Amino acid sequence: MNKKKSLPKNDILRDIQGEPDYRHINIDKVGVKDIRYPIVVLDKKNKFQHTIASISMYVDLPHQFKGTHMSRFIEILNEHRGEVTIKNFPDILKKMKKRFSASTAHLEVEFPYFMEKSAPVSKSKSLMEYKCKYTGILSDKKDFLLELMVPVLTLCPCSKEISERGAHNQRGLVKVSLRFEGFVWIEDIIKTIEESASSPVYSLLKRVDEKFITEHAYDNPMFVEDVVREVAVNLNKIKKVKWFRIEAENWESIHNHSAYAFLERKNS
Amino acid sequence: MNKKKSLPKNDILRDIQGEPDYRHINIDKVGVKDIRYPIVVLDKKNKFQHTIASISMYVDLPHQFKGTHMSRFIEILNEHRGEVTIKNFPDILKKMKKRFSASTAHLEVEFPYFMEKSAPVSKSKSLMEYKCKYTGILSDKKDFLLELMVPVLTLCPCSKEISERGAHNQRGLVKVSLRFEGFVWIEDIIKTIEESASSPVYSLLKRVDEKFITEHAYDNPMFVEDVVREVAVNLNKIKKVKWFRIEAENWESIHNHSAYAFLERKNS
Amino acid sequence: MNKKKSLPKNDILRDIQGEPDYRHINIDKVGVKDIRYPIVVLDKKNKFQHTIASISMYVDLPHQFKGTHMSRFIEILNEHRGEVTIKNFPDILKKMKKRFSASTAHLEVEFPYFMEKSAPVSKSKSLMEYKCKYTGILSDKKDFLLELMVPVLTLCPCSKEISERGAHNQRGLVKVSLRFEGFVWIEDIIKTIEESASSPVYSLLKRVDEKFITEHAYDNPMFVEDVVREVAVNLNKIKKVKWFRIEAENWESIHNHSAYAFLERKNS
Amino acid sequence: MNKKKSLPKNDILRDIQGEPDYRHINIDKVGVKDIRYPIVVLDKKNKFQHTIASISMYVDLPHQFKGTHMSRFIEILNEHRGEVTIKNFPDILKKMKKRFSASTAHLEVEFPYFMEKSAPVSKSKSLMEYKCKYTGILSDKKDFLLELMVPVLTLCPCSKEISERGAHNQRGLVKVSLRFEGFVWIEDIIKTIEESASSPVYSLLKRVDEKFITEHAYDNPMFVEDVVREVAVNLNKIKKVKWFRIEAENWESIHNHSAYAFLERKNS
Repeated sequence: MNKKKSLPKNDILRDIQGEPDYRHINIDKVGVKDIRYPIVVLDKKNKFQHTIASISMYVDLPHQFKGTHMSRFIEILNEHRGEVTIKNFPDILKKMKKRFSASTAHLEVEFPYFMEKSAPVSKSKSLMEYKCKYTGILSDKKDFLLELMVPVLTLCPCSKEISERGAHNQRGLVKVSLRFEGFVWIEDIIKTIEESASSPVYSLLKRVDEKFITEHAYDNPMFVEDVVREVAVNLNKIKKVKWFRIEAENWESIHNHSAYAFLERKNS
Repeated sequence: MNKKKSLPKNDILRDIQGEPDYRHINIDKVGVKDIRYPIVVLDKKNKFQHTIASISMYVDLPHQFKGTHMSRFIEILNEHRGEVTIKNFPDILKKMKKRFSASTAHLEVEFPYFMEKSAPVSKSKSLMEYKCKYTGILSDKKDFLLELMVPVLTLCPCSKEISERGAHNQRGLVKVSLRFEGFVWIEDIIKTIEESASSPVYSLLKRVDEKFITEHAYDNPMFVEDVVREVAVNLNKIKKVKWFRIEAENWESIHNHSAYAFLERKNS
Repeated sequence: MNKKKSLPKNDILRDIQGEPDYRHINIDKVGVKDIRYPIVVLDKKNKFQHTIASISMYVDLPHQFKGTHMSRFIEILNEHRGEVTIKNFPDILKKMKKRFSASTAHLEVEFPYFMEKSAPVSKSKSLMEYKCKYTGILSDKKDFLLELMVPVLTLCPCSKEISERGAHNQRGLVKVSLRFEGFVWIEDIIKTIEESASSPVYSLLKRVDEKFITEHAYDNPMFVEDVVREVAVNLNKIKKVKWFRIEAENWESIHNHSAYAFLERKNS
Repeated sequence: MNKKKSLPKNDILRDIQGEPDYRHINIDKVGVKDIRYPIVVLDKKNKFQHTIASISMYVDLPHQFKGTHMSRFIEILNEHRGEVTIKNFPDILKKMKKRFSASTAHLEVEFPYFMEKSAPVSKSKSLMEYKCKYTGILSDKKDFLLELMVPVLTLCPCSKEISERGAHNQRGLVKVSLRFEGFVWIEDIIKTIEESASSPVYSLLKRVDEKFITEHAYDNPMFVEDVVREVAVNLNKIKKVKWFRIEAENWESIHNHSAYAFLERKNS
């Protein structure tokens, strides 16, 4: 039905993506999104940790070209399957820029990260999951963001103050993005965040721990406003951190919606 | 490239779905899933309520036929666009059976339902969302399930007992499916569920309400185990209810996972 | 257990949120997130349309104050329950700024929007859902973004070119954010986006329509790169549109990940 | 404010969960839901594979007892952190029954599983993710279900037949649950499912592969009805498989909803 298609095609398959485009529109980012891949990341205690990432890889596309060769992203990923860490991120970005002759490369890697925690009194050990994300951009400049999502307990100062007994409390999520100089451990930032809420949360708690956390949270009531401010105060003390964005969300136990606070700041 | 395709095809398009299949395998359910549609449902206070549903419609397919005519489901839906209620559900199912010459028809309609609630002390009014689902099956028998998802507050009896001050509490979700005779109002079942937890939750609460709820929850501590038992006790009192399945899930404020309880019972 | 708590508390409940804070940290945004509410929006054909929104409302909080009075957001929402439209958005934002004595107010309203579409040949009518979002910010300046998510069909130009028969195609999602002057209809922007892909998608298609769409898509192959460029070309023609951000994502039928393209541009 | 609370409490903390309940309601399942944990599973090619699971663990609770000791679930999980496989599943269930003095134990483990696949022509290797779930129940009987979710490509037979060129196709998801005797490899069931659709999908495809898949899918058109029947025919050939439930869902490229088929059968 289509003449050109009756020609032998297996020898040379036309490269449509490489052909010219005449709309004169540069594309900022083009690539593959949310590809799932097992990776190894650095771990402060055990040196490395196996995890599973959702990965997005983009480059810019100048207006002259019709398309991008998407399979090359996967090839680069395969070459680095063993390890995607804060340390080799720049190399992957460089390879992307080069392989695509691009002026900008973007790499986003999101993964669950596990830390062993000891319960506050019984010292029972268990693993807690934290969501992490690395975002790197390489053009003539380079940029790298570390993002962490840390579940915490928050207890409402207003509820405590006005009530004769008890105080509503709930799980909340603190999301922190930061830029830094040198190297920071995920573990240290998570600890900083957990100490900025009414209490950390744990996978395994015995009764003595539950008593401790209940009372500790009652003694440290915090609004979402307090949480973002405390995290800001504490990140300010880490000199390597140069910029941060903090979000706190409470899954309110008395409402069916969230309380939310947000701030973004250069480190002073 | 394909001879038959050069024939004029617009006059009579071949009906592939209606052709025979030779694998001798009946299909239990085939149809459309998760189509989104605005509908009107019954409302105890305002007579009717506009909402937006995710709808799935299936019929069985005897082994002789290759496929189903999917567009007919949408046509039936269009004919009932104005109203999908507990009352006209049997008519839609009958129409499905007839239009497809099927021996069984399945209809699932999931939608957010809003109720106006008054805060416990200030009586401030606001709207709360509850997720509802109707599931109907019509063969030579008929079956209808009503499912409701109700957010509640639960306060931990253990934490209260062992702690010198405070008690951890959290938002939880109670999911109830039930079969009944005659007619039941969504509103009445929701009220029954909300009264079976440490406290209902609300969209709008003033300080006097927050004080009341905090203290009321502290005075009514409940495990997920207590919640499913209380709901069971209370549903048992509603004579129209003939069968129920109850799930309670707590988004624990001290953990990053849920506590969960489940029971299923014929009404005695 | 706490002296102050034995005082009569019901007459005057202390306002913790209004008390001073000494950390000297301004909060950029604080408020309620993802509250669900039924609203009415403008509709080009039927004047208005009932839908259900997820709403977030934030204000800034100066460093002197400890917290925000979250219930006021819900009160403002209640006062406007009848209607949240492009036209009265500025009024709600003004009310937020005033009620909170804030210097900036943020309002985000996300909702499903339905349009009646006619199938291309049979002209059979059905409803299609599009996700919409309004985002408004009012400080000393004002900003308003309209965001639309439009499902489309894309057919791969490379697959078509290199294959002797067929071409892989898939559902994709085009997400467009735009700033504009005056007033634009959601319907017009959606139409512009749908015309920029290999084909629109529909809820109800008869066989004649399915034939038409299959052939039409085959005749209009498009990469994600083509889609964002076509949308850009077409939005450029709408003089009211002053700025746009376009994302196209293909749920590739030959992969388990997405192809993605993104561009952001001031209108020239 | 509460007399009993001024007593020294740290020495012996009261065990509320172990106290009696008087509502005479047995609970079918109670435990922890969706706890995230890194595990190791069996791998046909590499012997074992690191992955990350969402785990739910439940036991029944007789009517005499008020609650369950949730922390014991996590302790059991910790003892088996190294390995959760089809082979040691019965041991974990036995331990749960014993530790809780329960008559029934339930264990659900859901995890992403990766397989290396070779592209059909270029033989380029890449990893593909499949979602897997193990569900085990141990009472006086034992039951084990293996569930696999396999993305595939489906091409519409009707669209191909009625159209002069092209045919709409899309990614779909096939979900298979099965009971079996002896031992089956995940890899073998996945292969069986992939061969029952118009084509498998891949992470990495070169142009020669894309041509092959496009043409292969065009030559093997399948409705969702065909997919569930083909999977049924092929599972019937595996003698170890004793029961199966098959669901196929197409994310239709011409619609914004899914086509769906379902069947459940004992193996004959």
